[in-house]
Amino acid sequence: MPAPHGEEVVVPLGPRSYPVLVGEEMLPVVGPRLAAAGFHGRCGLVTSERVGRLYGETTASALRASGFEPTVVEIPDGEEHKNLAWLAVIYDRLLEAGIDRRSPVVALGGGVVGDLAGFAAGTLLRGLPLVQVPTTLLAQVDAGIGGKTGVNHALGKNLIGVFHQPEFVVADVGVLRTLPRRELVAGLAEVIKYGVIMDETLFDDVEAHLDDLLALHGEVLVRVVATCARHKAAVVAADEREERGGRAVLNFGHTVGHALEALTEYRQFLHGEAVAIGMVAAARVSRALGCCDASTVARIEHVLTRAGLPTALPSDIAPEALALGMQADKKRTGGRIRFVAVEAIGRVRLVELTPGEIVSRL
Amino acid sequence: MPAPHGEEVVVPLGPRSYPVLVGEEMLPVVGPRLAAAGFHGRCGLVTSERVGRLYGETTASALRASGFEPTVVEIPDGEEHKNLAWLAVIYDRLLEAGIDRRSPVVALGGGVVGDLAGFAAGTLLRGLPLVQVPTTLLAQVDAGIGGKTGVNHALGKNLIGVFHQPEFVVADVGVLRTLPRRELVAGLAEVIKYGVIMDETLFDDVEAHLDDLLALHGEVLVRVVATCARHKAAVVAADEREERGGRAVLNFGHTVGHALEALTEYRQFLHGEAVAIGMVAAARVSRALGCCDASTVARIEHVLTRAGLPTALPSDIAPEALALGMQADKKRTGGRIRFVAVEAIGRVRLVELTPGEIVSRL
Repeated sequence: MPAPHGEEVVVPLGPRSYPVLVGEEMLPVVGPRLAAAGFHGRCGLVTSERVGRLYGETTASALRASGFEPTVVEIPDGEEHKNLAWLAVIYDRLLEAGIDRRSPVVALGGGVVGDLAGFAAGTLLRGLPLVQVPTTLLAQVDAGIGGKTGVNHALGKNLIGVFHQPEFVVADVGVLRTLPRRELVAGLAEVIKYGVIMDETLFDDVEAHLDDLLALHGEVLVRVVATCARHKAAVVAADEREERGGRAVLNFGHTVGHALEALTEYRQFLHGEAVAIGMVAAARVSRALGCCDASTVARIEHVLTRAGLPTALPSDIAPEALALGMQADKKRTGGRIRFVAVEAIGRVRLVELTPGEIVSRL
Repeated sequence: MPAPHGEEVVVPLGPRSYPVLVGEEMLPVVGPRLAAAGFHGRCGLVTSERVGRLYGETTASALRASGFEPTVVEIPDGEEHKNLAWLAVIYDRLLEAGIDRRSPVVALGGGVVGDLAGFAAGTLLRGLPLVQVPTTLLAQVDAGIGGKTGVNHALGKNLIGVFHQPEFVVADVGVLRTLPRRELVAGLAEVIKYGVIMDETLFDDVEAHLDDLLALHGEVLVRVVATCARHKAAVVAADEREERGGRAVLNFGHTVGHALEALTEYRQFLHGEAVAIGMVAAARVSRALGCCDASTVARIEHVLTRAGLPTALPSDIAPEALALGMQADKKRTGGRIRFVAVEAIGRVRLVELTPGEIVSRL
């Protein structure tokens, strides 16, 4: 790898194992790496308008230099475009370009691009090779790894999709320098989440080097992103298709976070912001249940606040509304929710609670 | 199983193994079998208008009697409805009904219903349990088994889809009594194909009992459908995701057949009819290549003719047009086609040929 302090993390899924390459100035490696894997000829390059303007040509050139003929498909920015209509646009453009079953699809962008392009790759000709090149911190530490793809439906998010693992993932932390500050900070919420649920050392690292992270210090970013990728890889390896509940710990902060996003119609908060509020809420519920002490709650709240993330529920959200919002969570089983409670920094456990039992402890 | 002469064939795919239940009056077993597998509550029942009118209520009642709440979605008859628009209708109806990740989808119908409902099941909530209940002879011996699902695109058939194996397959030969005669006969083409490519005994059986088959004699139908299911199961087991070329033998007769269907815009011939013509064409090419003798060609042609299937290329189809039609076949590699040549009844081999080399030997 070209990056002086790059790291390679393997997602161990037997015959579907793949590496996550974390480093700086990594976009040019996509072409050579795909060529080395035996692919050539036509390929798709799906990106967003904003990311395409910044990094589309760099990536396309590198693909052409490695013998590929990329067909670029640009999706407008915004979660509202993660739908069947834009999926159909990708289908049309790539089929018109004459792709075949060996044509890779490169997803260059945030979660929306990764999910849409991944779903297209998973379903075109019953499955094309996929490369995820996440360009937001959130996607680099979470959605870009694990093979979840899909689109939203009027009745809910991610209701249509497939599991489709990529050939490899390229996480270029250098591109985070052009990420809007608010999105970078929102991504830190998920980084902090990994610390809380499974890695106290990571939590300590983020506490100690938060200023470096916010200043986009390359070496610290690579270390932190690679650590998160390793954790995501382990969770995915234990429960590839979300059948055994092993991925449930990743929902820490998401029960309240999802409800909050839905109640505010996905307009007021970025996902990471809602999760930050949700993590503090989850920590308070954990404390009320006797799972953890007050200092754990304070530590979580403090680092999120320092990062610039919101931690308090908006005053205009009634507990009853929040409870109702949780009912819609598709991970529900009966009327109960598998709530992720924190025991200490780095350790959580699952507790079955009703929405009412959760909001009464906030 | 209730049928006195029913047979159960297993598709051996490790953790994704499943049975194909072949018999008569089998529709009522769908509900109890699903319940026995641990499912309950909401389920989808996707069918076509014609099949729904005949068998929808029988199947739905049996599901309700086993504790299910089926949501019925009827697709208009015809291959032109195997598209993203009707897929979206299935998505809408089942999501509005409140399905969850344990809600089975039952596909009751021919290939169009099986492919559409299978694709919906493969992608809703990233994968729902699926039951295939093929109601045409063609779907019972071919498309209902093996997990291929998908929809057509303006640029070609089955260009969008996923592999999604069912929980089980129910092939009720009794429903073939209401199948239009022309479709029954077209299905026999695929039965005869299994004989040619891998089973001389089956070919002999069809020759000896063709009148019984055409008269829909239950015991003979069960034996023949189960035998075909066993062959399809073996081919699928050897190459589940069509990655190793093991499914290629199933394309016997399909190189010319597909081209013929495309050239006549899928209006003049049913799939099995085009395959019948394609099989005779393939046998002639095999003979011209020195792969088989004249009696093999004659035997194939004779049984197809007796079944009431067409065997001659329409006089208005020019060889050049046919060659061009083969270029579009998505199984192409470079300019060459992996042509399935017959050596003797029950034995074939793959030969790499160009479209020109094929049509010059017709």
